[in-house]
Amino acid sequence: MYLKNAWYVAAWSNEIGEALAERTILDTPILLYRKENGDPVAIGNLCPHRFAPLHMGRRIGDSVQCNYHGMVFGETGHCVLNPHRGGVISPAMKVAAYPLIERNGAIWIWMGEAEAADPALLPDFDCYSAPGFTTIRGMMDVAANYELIADNLLDLTHAEFLHDGALSSEAITISKLETMESGSTIWANRWCPNGEAAPVWSQIQERVMGVDPAKPIDHWLYMRWDAPGHLLLDVGITEPGNRREQGGWVFTGHHLTPISPTRTFYYWTVVRNHGLDDPEIEAFWQGSIDYAFAVQDKPMIEAQQRMIGDRHVEDLNPVAIPADLAGAKARRMLARLRAAEVKGEPRPALGGSALNELLKSAAESANPVLPVV
Amino acid sequence: MYLKNAWYVAAWSNEIGEALAERTILDTPILLYRKENGDPVAIGNLCPHRFAPLHMGRRIGDSVQCNYHGMVFGETGHCVLNPHRGGVISPAMKVAAYPLIERNGAIWIWMGEAEAADPALLPDFDCYSAPGFTTIRGMMDVAANYELIADNLLDLTHAEFLHDGALSSEAITISKLETMESGSTIWANRWCPNGEAAPVWSQIQERVMGVDPAKPIDHWLYMRWDAPGHLLLDVGITEPGNRREQGGWVFTGHHLTPISPTRTFYYWTVVRNHGLDDPEIEAFWQGSIDYAFAVQDKPMIEAQQRMIGDRHVEDLNPVAIPADLAGAKARRMLARLRAAEVKGEPRPALGGSALNELLKSAAESANPVLPVV
Amino acid sequence: MYLKNAWYVAAWSNEIGEALAERTILDTPILLYRKENGDPVAIGNLCPHRFAPLHMGRRIGDSVQCNYHGMVFGETGHCVLNPHRGGVISPAMKVAAYPLIERNGAIWIWMGEAEAADPALLPDFDCYSAPGFTTIRGMMDVAANYELIADNLLDLTHAEFLHDGALSSEAITISKLETMESGSTIWANRWCPNGEAAPVWSQIQERVMGVDPAKPIDHWLYMRWDAPGHLLLDVGITEPGNRREQGGWVFTGHHLTPISPTRTFYYWTVVRNHGLDDPEIEAFWQGSIDYAFAVQDKPMIEAQQRMIGDRHVEDLNPVAIPADLAGAKARRMLARLRAAEVKGEPRPALGGSALNELLKSAAESANPVLPVV
Repeated sequence: MYLKNAWYVAAWSNEIGEALAERTILDTPILLYRKENGDPVAIGNLCPHRFAPLHMGRRIGDSVQCNYHGMVFGETGHCVLNPHRGGVISPAMKVAAYPLIERNGAIWIWMGEAEAADPALLPDFDCYSAPGFTTIRGMMDVAANYELIADNLLDLTHAEFLHDGALSSEAITISKLETMESGSTIWANRWCPNGEAAPVWSQIQERVMGVDPAKPIDHWLYMRWDAPGHLLLDVGITEPGNRREQGGWVFTGHHLTPISPTRTFYYWTVVRNHGLDDPEIEAFWQGSIDYAFAVQDKPMIEAQQRMIGDRHVEDLNPVAIPADLAGAKARRMLARLRAAEVKGEPRPALGGSALNELLKSAAESANPVLPVV
Repeated sequence: MYLKNAWYVAAWSNEIGEALAERTILDTPILLYRKENGDPVAIGNLCPHRFAPLHMGRRIGDSVQCNYHGMVFGETGHCVLNPHRGGVISPAMKVAAYPLIERNGAIWIWMGEAEAADPALLPDFDCYSAPGFTTIRGMMDVAANYELIADNLLDLTHAEFLHDGALSSEAITISKLETMESGSTIWANRWCPNGEAAPVWSQIQERVMGVDPAKPIDHWLYMRWDAPGHLLLDVGITEPGNRREQGGWVFTGHHLTPISPTRTFYYWTVVRNHGLDDPEIEAFWQGSIDYAFAVQDKPMIEAQQRMIGDRHVEDLNPVAIPADLAGAKARRMLARLRAAEVKGEPRPALGGSALNELLKSAAESANPVLPVV
Repeated sequence: MYLKNAWYVAAWSNEIGEALAERTILDTPILLYRKENGDPVAIGNLCPHRFAPLHMGRRIGDSVQCNYHGMVFGETGHCVLNPHRGGVISPAMKVAAYPLIERNGAIWIWMGEAEAADPALLPDFDCYSAPGFTTIRGMMDVAANYELIADNLLDLTHAEFLHDGALSSEAITISKLETMESGSTIWANRWCPNGEAAPVWSQIQERVMGVDPAKPIDHWLYMRWDAPGHLLLDVGITEPGNRREQGGWVFTGHHLTPISPTRTFYYWTVVRNHGLDDPEIEAFWQGSIDYAFAVQDKPMIEAQQRMIGDRHVEDLNPVAIPADLAGAKARRMLARLRAAEVKGEPRPALGGSALNELLKSAAESANPVLPVV
């Protein structure tokens, strides 16, 4: 049901410290904490003795003691101290240990077989740490399947309706949607030169760029999807013909970690190249995200889930529109990766680096041109 | 499980305006609103694209726009505008449309095949609009199967116990219960001449009729049931030998619309021929209903449902008493109509008009005589 | 699933009076009340007519009238008055009646066939009424299977961890756990001579016994289990070589009555031989129990249950430790008794009285010696 041999965001880095934190990921109870040297640890949260949750226990050095009968588990998941008569430790006294990578402000967890953990399958989110950019982050607990959230992000035509036009414009509507696929990566891109930007940008256009918001602008929205649910929107405005970094440039990241088939941890971030120390700009982006995600997208997606119930959306014969293409491709890719995993077949690599390089160079060029595979 | 080829009350007329309203009826999400000319519309509430609820959308003229991706649906349920590239509308882009009849202050919805919608199957509730009568109305959301509520209404012997005697009297207890059946209609009638009325009537007897409440009175309680759950109680008191309209006369209507097998919209009304402009009389009837339904009947019926759980009451081998007869007849009739519907067999007509005429003339005569089929 | 031919605590005696009380026991709705002569009655709570709960009804002498349609049921469960036409009472008009024994401050209910009710299967809790002792009592509604609670009580090694050491000591930790079995009774005993007591006893040692709490003491903890879930901890401290009654002596009783497979009424009592009229000592024991049970044990056991879900703990391959021995024996005994009940085989008697006598004499002797079967 889930893709297990994959990296999920277990938490933003700043959420995890020495305290014992619990997260249910893919229906599996996980314990998260940092060792004294700061390295994060993820092990199974259920003591193998009587299934007491370890997060109700206590730290002993870099290990964790179950608060029920006192067994101590180390970072590898093995019991390191059995306080009971004899202190004998049997091989069964262990919990799972999950490979982690901490990168770009997030703790990424590998939910499949540890031996299969492959850093090459971690999508590139280096933009989160790019010099000249700053970041805000958050997490929402959404009562919906993670693929419904990905549908929402891969089809930005909903912005015109659900977001009252604040995130859409005529220039976006008439732009051509370029859907691309390379390896297991999918893009849904729009390049909207010399038109109006979505209204959410008008303040950036005026205050940050010093440009009359009534003037035409080059506007881009490039959405990238990677399995199982990592999305990156590269979006911004710049004066016609200018380079991207001369304008207002933002990356929004969206990491969808299934709690269960009908509930999702949604980790989001906004990474911007402007107003780095400006509290008003910070409050503007925070407020925009809160409004768009929490007030508009979340209630709609949760209503969708309630209507769909325990059924699978594809089994309900939904009517398709062209804007569904990228979402449908992502669903098919995920199904293909899951099937390959079950059969033990090799899985495709992440989207070709050639394409990534092309996108990067486009980002740096004047008149960014949408690359075509 | 449900009788689909039947009229249900979707709402009281005054509950529905231009705003988008939702109701779940027979487990089916329904959208209700009025067109600009005032006519009511009922269509499926789930957009066929991604199953977003349409009631979260907006009105565009007489149509409704889904607030997720902007498809617009008209009163026939067909998509009338597809804002996506090309605007092509496929035949699958539609929601169901439900036949409606607005009559006697209620909006009646046909939940079966639209072609089968038959106004002749709508029971007669013209008394709701009778000259010389006035009306109060309400709705309760009851956490119980609708047949349990019908049981309650068809066996008024419960009044002696559950309603602390306020709705019962010795004259009612000793009266003969006449259970009649004609077509698909069932009656459970009591004619209680020259005795005491139920205490709830004493204020009417004294204030409205100017009669000492200790004096004997003619009292009638005629309950009519029609499938799937429409009940009409014709009830009142008049001085012995007087005509009905000389006394205090009330129709209480009870319309049971299943939300699910264990939850019901209960639409009720009290239609009276006295104190038409008297706020105290109005408050008296409103308070009596609130107390009898919300404080006494509803908690008991919901407790019954909790005890029965997901099981069917008939499968629990209930002990029968004679007072169950009308309720049992109604359950059997409903089962018979459902079976006929599944097999595509013709269904019996509503209760014979001859009997209705007889009841009407009885209502107008002095010494109303209980008609026998 | 449940052992039915067994005594369960239905309520503490002081919880039941003339008012109608409901309890769900082994998934079965039960009505409890006292007759005018004070004797307790337990009958089925669902009227056989339409399954209305009788506790919503009213007392008529020693009988109970259903508040829906007025049937009256006596203490034997048979209908004694049918208010409906004719008043005929059919044999089916009855609810179950449950044998009760009121003893030692509790009302014990037999949930199996009434003919099989055997007072000899009621474990001995006469210590609750022993002269020179006084009692506090309470009940907790725990969202966990009752066997998980028995596990907790039969393995006191958890005290060192879950109770922050307040209920444990080095002397307890190094003591030998004597697990014994006789008939269907199981003991898990620790005799800890001439060492420190658990910290919870220091106030008793100092205030009640007038002994410096730093001085060594004889400490005993004898836990007895009887099916289906009755536990008695005989626990206390006395100066080395002294008799038990010269020290601080407490019996804690634990009666686990399943509401459902995942919810339990937990009746507890603390019976002490000291500070009989001392409100501070009373408050100390009440506070200790509240803290240990409600703040420490209950959250842990409920967390265990949430993690285990609907599964059976034994099916999850738990890792065993020696301290599980008594709990495992109790689980096996319960399984054996259930299997015997299903097959109609005879069941073993309660633990041999010879052993009980031995324990009693040990309790009265100086240097109580742990008896071995």
